This record gives sequence, structure tokens and C-alpha cells, in this order.
Amino acid sequence: MLRECGISDFVVVTGCYADAIEKSLGHGEKYGVSISYLHNADWKLGNGVSAYTFHRAYRQGEKFILLMSDHLFEADLIRAFLAAAEDLKDDELLLAADRRLDKVYDLDECTKVLARGNYAAKLGKELAEFNAVDCGLFVGTGSLLEALARSIEKGNCALADAVNLLAGAGKVKLHFVEHSWIDVDDYESYKEAEKILLRSLVPARDGFISRVINRRFSLRITRLLAATSITPNQVTFLSFLAAAAAAISFALGRPFIGGLLAQLASIIDGVDGEIARLKFLRSSFGEVFDSLLDRYGDCLIVMGMAYAWHSATGQPAALLAGAAALAGMPLSMLFKEKFRNAFGKPFIPEAYDGWLRYVPANRDGRLFVVMLGGVFNQLPAALVLLAAVSHLQVLVRLYKLRKGGMN
Amino acid sequence: MLRECGISDFVVVTGCYADAIEKSLGHGEKYGVSISYLHNADWKLGNGVSAYTFHRAYRQGEKFILLMSDHLFEADLIRAFLAAAEDLKDDELLLAADRRLDKVYDLDECTKVLARGNYAAKLGKELAEFNAVDCGLFVGTGSLLEALARSIEKGNCALADAVNLLAGAGKVKLHFVEHSWIDVDDYESYKEAEKILLRSLVPARDGFISRVINRRFSLRITRLLAATSITPNQVTFLSFLAAAAAAISFALGRPFIGGLLAQLASIIDGVDGEIARLKFLRSSFGEVFDSLLDRYGDCLIVMGMAYAWHSATGQPAALLAGAAALAGMPLSMLFKEKFRNAFGKPFIPEAYDGWLRYVPANRDGRLFVVMLGGVFNQLPAALVLLAAVSHLQVLVRLYKLRKGGMN
Repeated sequence: MLRECGISDFVVVTGCYADAIEKSLGHGEKYGVSISYLHNADWKLGNGVSAYTFHRAYRQGEKFILLMSDHLFEADLIRAFLAAAEDLKDDELLLAADRRLDKVYDLDECTKVLARGNYAAKLGKELAEFNAVDCGLFVGTGSLLEALARSIEKGNCALADAVNLLAGAGKVKLHFVEHSWIDVDDYESYKEAEKILLRSLVPARDGFISRVINRRFSLRITRLLAATSITPNQVTFLSFLAAAAAAISFALGRPFIGGLLAQLASIIDGVDGEIARLKFLRSSFGEVFDSLLDRYGDCLIVMGMAYAWHSATGQPAALLAGAAALAGMPLSMLFKEKFRNAFGKPFIPEAYDGWLRYVPANRDGRLFVVMLGGVFNQLPAALVLLAAVSHLQVLVRLYKLRKGGMN
Repeated sequence: MLRECGISDFVVVTGCYADAIEKSLGHGEKYGVSISYLHNADWKLGNGVSAYTFHRAYRQGEKFILLMSDHLFEADLIRAFLAAAEDLKDDELLLAADRRLDKVYDLDECTKVLARGNYAAKLGKELAEFNAVDCGLFVGTGSLLEALARSIEKGNCALADAVNLLAGAGKVKLHFVEHSWIDVDDYESYKEAEKILLRSLVPARDGFISRVINRRFSLRITRLLAATSITPNQVTFLSFLAAAAAAISFALGRPFIGGLLAQLASIIDGVDGEIARLKFLRSSFGEVFDSLLDRYGDCLIVMGMAYAWHSATGQPAALLAGAAALAGMPLSMLFKEKFRNAFGKPFIPEAYDGWLRYVPANRDGRLFVVMLGGVFNQLPAALVLLAAVSHLQVLVRLYKLRKGGMN
């Protein structure tokens, strides 16, 4: 995640389990970064000694980011923090602090901060008066290493002691965070961290059905699959298989099972993206593969539904509705992709679609319609609705685009 | 076209018909540029006097582009020329020259140039020794206006006289053009210019059937429609109507007419783009509108063909082939658009598709298959082929993409 924020050189200061850590992380090849190690044999003395160990690798004049290995931060928190560090003075320390005290997990365990404006006046676990807590994320300069040296000399071996020295000199600037973070110290906080991490996997632009229904299941599946070596593309294929199974169920006259399988396909369709983001396995191939396999899944389901309807009743309307749905379903995505290429900006349903957003014409909505149609054994109605909303969406979008409503 | 090359300020020097010209061009609002006028009452004296008229609007230190209003240049010629003008020295003149003497239209009428390396030694209509001709396109600096003043003082009123003065001083740098241009002096050259202009409307990436068949007709239609006020979007709609008429013909059991109408739709599908480029009416809306209406046209045609096959024979295979074709046809475009968004670069069939380029899976190829199927009354074969090539194309593309063959 730090790599995504633009950090590529890492120095890991190890204490106990040094060998196991080095063995697990290596030199960072598999993460696309460079990792080197410094060992602090006296790690028991306090985290200030570990932080000071970094002076062996420090080059005069550099700014560096210092963070606790047991803290979890949202990527956007780190991005905002790094942006704030741009205009940090050469002898200052920037500290990420959280003043949303009611939201801080396990306030007792936190290092408290007394902030005066944008600067820290005092820090400590047992501060009587405080208005923020220390998130364990710093951008340091040489001055922090000097403060650590002075502080350790006096036998004060905690990082907070050195930071307090600088704070007394008015050199600890604060950046107040607005995103989630957590200090993972025990099983409770580990579960909380897991929640934060999973929540961060949901993309900002998510369909209504996806947000309200699918993510509740897909995030659970992602948590289960996270420990396995399954790849996002394999999950994409599983989603396609579920859609194909739904189509076959419809064709065999088992609409209830077909409907449930269609919804399952829709849920699994969210898992591939979640795993890709969780494990930093996003790929352009994966995006294209997912798009195309989704189209195949949609087509098979519609064909299965039309076949079921037609073979049960012999009505030509089944074929017409099936053809209309087949023709209409890819248009939602096609419009968005073409719009982005023609206008050079992404199509934002929230901004452009207006009331159309509540029409189930995107994939999560369409497969929800299929599920309802199957479970309540109303395939004709579902198929006609699918066809109608697909074409309605594209025609309204074209009309709005023409009227200049998407500028 | 100059606007597309980044030029936005125009000064038109008028001679005779000054009022008519000003009335026709206005101040450039309708072209999205700024046009001002200078009148040269002594235009009969020679084009040097007209060129010198510009000194009234010239601001010291500026570079300006000077071109003859009766010369036609390909946009790429001007782009390359302007790029070459970037590192022109302050007292030099850059002249576009063509050394492809065998390709020059009406060599007799041209001003000849004796080039020594990248500089002109001498110019004139009657040069005995020459190795290039003057294209009538310059980037000038103040030095050209000074040379014009000196030359006119001596009674030499042609632009070439002033250029010769500068050439003598080694100040006329040459840029050798590699694209088409023409001096339009008479009806013959007008027809030739029209040919160059129409040829330039064919996009670089054009399908095989489009290049070999469709453009022969579409360019003729574009020439006929150029004088009317028909818009590219109206032409797009006409193409859709032709496709819808083809679909109805198939459904009514008139495959021959249906096939011809499908090919007509394919031809007209080229005209909208040609008119848009010719009249500088390209729009992002037009691109999206064209893409979506093409998809609707395709779907109607396939539905018409499947209906004809099925109603004639009652074979379920007709429905299956129709559904497979409906599902497959949008995938060609969808893959390309999605690829471009996912990889941030256009999908180039020439580079990525290999032997797949010769499979009629793009729209010009698909409608050609429809035409053959209709004309030879082989709708089933055409429909199966359409379905097969569409899916083959997308599967092979996915496979190649996975293997890293598109980097």
C-alpha cells in the first residue's frame, strides 16, 4: 500500500524474530520495492532505540517516513499525510494525529497529544489534558534522530520521549487525519483492523444492490479466500461458472435454483475485485477478462431464461424479449467505456444518470431482477424488464448527452 | 484545419473581392478562431506587396505562418512543418519545399528552389537548375518583412523576390514535405485538390472491406453531400435506417434486397465520419451516438436473419445461431474500448490481431458477410459465420492478451 502511495525504499528495523521477518519479506522483489534491514539487538529497551537504529542508514538532509509495523492505515490517510509533509521545514517532525477521540479504537492504549493549533505541545500515555492521539506515523528529518540520541543518552528509551523533546521546542507539527487507522495489539484490535481493511476494498462507485446486498456476502467470501492462493482471475471464472449454472438451471426448468445461482454470480463478481485490491493483484488483463466474462455470463442467463419461457409456452414473445435483452444488456457498459474514450473522462453514474440510477440496468441490478424472476418463478416479467431497462437506460443517456447534460 | 494544428489567430490580407471574403469568413466565430483583415489596395502589383501588408499587424519578435489562400495542404504536412519551425533562428525564414518532383502537380507553374542541404540557394519560376519546388508555406520572422520592404523599394513586387534576397544571405531554411499539397489555379487542379481532400478523409485504421470496397462509394457520397447542410449525426441515423430496412427485408423473405441494404448501411457508416472530418464537425457525442446506433443496426439485422431462417425452416438452430451472433457482435468493439481504458492505450488491430485481421469480425467485415449471405440466399451460413468469427475474435484476443502479446 505504501508503494501505491509512492514509497519504494524501505528499511525494516528488526528486533526479535529478525530472521523470520527477513525470510518472509525478502528484499522486496515480490512487492516491487526495495527492502533493507537493520537489526537492533537492544529492542527490549524501548521503541526509541529501534527508531534510532535507523541513523545507520540515514543520509544527511533526507526526509523519511517512520511508522509502526503494527499499525494499519487506510491508503488515503497516508496519501493525505505525505501531501501535508511536502512543505515540512528541515528541522521539524510531522506527526499524524487523530482528534476524533470518540472514534479512536482503545483510547487507553494510545499515546495522547496535547495540540496547540497545528503543533504538539506535549505527548504521553498518561497525559491529563489532551485533545488528540498519536497515530504512530511520522515524517522525520535529521532532527528526530538527534533528539533520539539525546533522549536515549539520558536513559529515556521510548520514541515518545524524543518526540516530547522536539515538541517542547515547538518542532512537532501535527497533521490531523480523516481516515481510518488502528493499532493492532491484540485479537480484538486484529478483528477491528480486519473490518477496516475489508471495508476499504469496496470501490467508491458501487451499484445500489451491490452496496446493500452483495458486499455483505462478498466481503465475507473475500475474508475466507484471503488466506488461499486463489487469484482474482480464477474468481472471475468462478463467477462466470455460477452464471452458466444459473442459465442451465433456468433451461432445465429450475428457476428457483437458477435465480439463486444468478445472485451468487453477482456476489462472486464483487469478490475478484476485492481480492485484487486486498492483495495488490490488480491487472489490466483482469479488468478486460472480467468485463468480457461478465458479458458471457449475462448472455447465457438470458438465453436460459428465454429458452425456459419459450419451451414452456411456445410464445414467440419469449424469443423477442430474449433477443431484446441480449441486444440491450451490453449497452450499459459499452456506453460507459465509449463515453470515457470519446470524452476523455470517466462516466460517473452519480453525476450523469439522475433518476436512472434507480433503474436496475447495471449488472448488480440486472442480476437482482434475474434472481427475483427466478425465485418467484416470473421469468417472462423479469426478461421483459431486463430488456426494457437496458434500452431505456441507453436511450435516456444518449438524450441527456445530446442535450449537454453530461459536461 | 489550421486550428487543428494549433493556430488560432488569423490575419487575412485581401485584395479584390475584399468585402465578399470578409462577409463569408466573418471574425472566425463559427470556426472557433479569431480572424482580422488587412486590405491591400495595390494587390495587382504582386503577392510581395500583399505579404508586406502584414507589417501593419506584425508585432516585433513574433514568428508567423504565411500561406497562400489557394494552396491546399494535408493537416499532417502542416503539423510536421510547424514542428520543424520550433527551432528556427530569429532572423531566418522557414520554407516548405517538395523535392519529390515527379509527384508535384503542374511543375511548370511552380516556383522552383535550388536547395543546398537544408537551405535554399536560389528561387524562381524559371530556374534552370533546381531540385525542389516551393509549396507556398512559410514561417516568417521580422526579417522577411524587412526583405519585402527592401525588395519592393527596388520595384520587385513578388514574394519570391524577397525570399531570394534572404536566400542569398543564407537565411532561408527548407523543410522538405512528405505529405500531399496542391496549388489550386484552375479547374484541373481543383479536381485534383478535391481528390487529395477526399483521400485525406479515410482514417488511418480502416478495415479491409472498408478500404477495398466501401470507401470507393462513401467518398463519392461524401462529395455529393458536402455541399448540403446534412450533419454527420443525421448520416449516422440514415445508416441505421438502412440497417433497419435490411433487417425488415430479411424478415419479409427478401434476402437479396436485405443483403444490398446491409452493405449500403456499411457504406453510409463511413460517410458520417468523412463528413465530420471534412467539415470539422467531429464531436464526442457523434462518436458515442455512432457506436450505439451501429450496435442497434447490427442487432436488428441479426434478428431479421434469424427470423427469416427460423420461419422458413422451423429449425431451433436458427434461434441458437441468432442468439450466439447477438451475444458475440458487440464484443469486438467492447474489447477495444475496454482495452483502451484498462491499458491507457488504443487497441491497434494491425499490431495485436495478427492473422485475426483477416477474419471478418469487425463491422465492415461482418456486414460484408451479411451482404453475401443475402445476395446468395445463404442466411444460415452467414449467421453461423457471424457468430463464429465474433466469438473466435474475442477468445483469441483474450488468449493473446493473457500471453502478453499486446504489450
